[in-house]
Amino acid sequence: MQKFYVIGIGPGAPEEMTIRAKQALAEADIIAGYGTYIDLVKPLFPDKEYLQNGMTGEIKRCQLALEKAKEGKTVAMVSSGDSGIYGMAGLVLELAQGMEIDVETVPGITAAASGASLLGAPLMHDFAVISLSDRLTEWDLIVKRLNNAAEADFIIVLYNPRSKGRPDHIDRAREIFLQYKSASTPVGIVKNIGRTGETVILTTLGEMNIEDVDMFSTVFIGNRQTYIKDGKMITPRGYLEKKGNHQ
Amino acid sequence: MQKFYVIGIGPGAPEEMTIRAKQALAEADIIAGYGTYIDLVKPLFPDKEYLQNGMTGEIKRCQLALEKAKEGKTVAMVSSGDSGIYGMAGLVLELAQGMEIDVETVPGITAAASGASLLGAPLMHDFAVISLSDRLTEWDLIVKRLNNAAEADFIIVLYNPRSKGRPDHIDRAREIFLQYKSASTPVGIVKNIGRTGETVILTTLGEMNIEDVDMFSTVFIGNRQTYIKDGKMITPRGYLEKKGNHQ
Repeated sequence: MQKFYVIGIGPGAPEEMTIRAKQALAEADIIAGYGTYIDLVKPLFPDKEYLQNGMTGEIKRCQLALEKAKEGKTVAMVSSGDSGIYGMAGLVLELAQGMEIDVETVPGITAAASGASLLGAPLMHDFAVISLSDRLTEWDLIVKRLNNAAEADFIIVLYNPRSKGRPDHIDRAREIFLQYKSASTPVGIVKNIGRTGETVILTTLGEMNIEDVDMFSTVFIGNRQTYIKDGKMITPRGYLEKKGNHQ
Repeated sequence: MQKFYVIGIGPGAPEEMTIRAKQALAEADIIAGYGTYIDLVKPLFPDKEYLQNGMTGEIKRCQLALEKAKEGKTVAMVSSGDSGIYGMAGLVLELAQGMEIDVETVPGITAAASGASLLGAPLMHDFAVISLSDRLTEWDLIVKRLNNAAEADFIIVLYNPRSKGRPDHIDRAREIFLQYKSASTPVGIVKNIGRTGETVILTTLGEMNIEDVDMFSTVFIGNRQTYIKDGKMITPRGYLEKKGNHQ
């Protein structure tokens, strides 16, 4: 069966990709994806055939790529982060149903993981990942998830926190969090991870400036144990508290 | 300042590691970690100095490794998955406070991502990651999180779902989920990801056999949209439903 790779390349820098992702790209005849992601890969494989289109043309992009696979080409569809987390893996698998194509998803480092590594160690405990984009999800359901996650003291990671079309979602999320979490709860904002303009901001729920958040940001809200020290946002796993019992 | 790497090597197979993780390992004088993880890395770097100890000796292991760094050695502490997600990054950062050591966390592919790629595309929407281990978290708080996540229709990923010391946690979680999710909700169980004995089981909340779950498993519970078709567990992102508006 014709192989079709759906590859997450991680935050952007080539060395953040897995060895398996690089091998799959090398194997591909055609590399497909949104232009920004193609630009990250092209310097590594300048001689490949490329297939790209705009941000909201997801269905068309997948259909064109699958057509190429049906013609016998090995296609690699790339996206940043992990293609299996809010990525293209689902749409490709749905559109490939009934075709004789073997879709293989190659995971990458998602923004929750790459952002956490820049902030310190915020994800040492249970966490919820929530997208604030209501393009494909009802806002009421997003609100329900924000409430439930905050009430159960999850660490919360917000994807797509802000854009021109929804400038105030991040502020509405913050208002919800403040019903359950104290204003001193640590917040980490990470922008342009692994790319030009990489920025890390440490603040609190009470003091965060929503103007610091844009569509290239990922926002981390701590749980009750999270603290900031020496420029690092840390949620203790609990080993030191249990030291007497478990060392 | 002396560099100290905390490296997530991903699910286990060497090619699942990022290029940056491999570079950091190559740079290290000493590689430290729990024995099972050391065994995954040793074949790649047979001539390094290794520092290993048992599973529950986390504090001791970090202290010994930090001592080596203070002596001027470049140390790489390895763990499977992502060291920033329920990993060693937090403890290392806490123990390194006040030392002149530059701790750098190198993220890896966590089980939520590697497991999802084997199952299909279950994580196309908001999800919650919850550990069922009560070694470092009160069981009541875990129960609260299971309830809140299920009620808000998160996809749920369970880490540490079952062990000898807590054989029934997974069944108690299932009982909680059944209060909010239908018995036909898809469930994916992934075992020994990237290693000998890799197993993928697709079932439902109503029919899952808890004997299929062990301490090397990660369990995925779908949301209301998740379905299983042609051996793949898929949560539609929603592009096809919105096709008329956004193509």
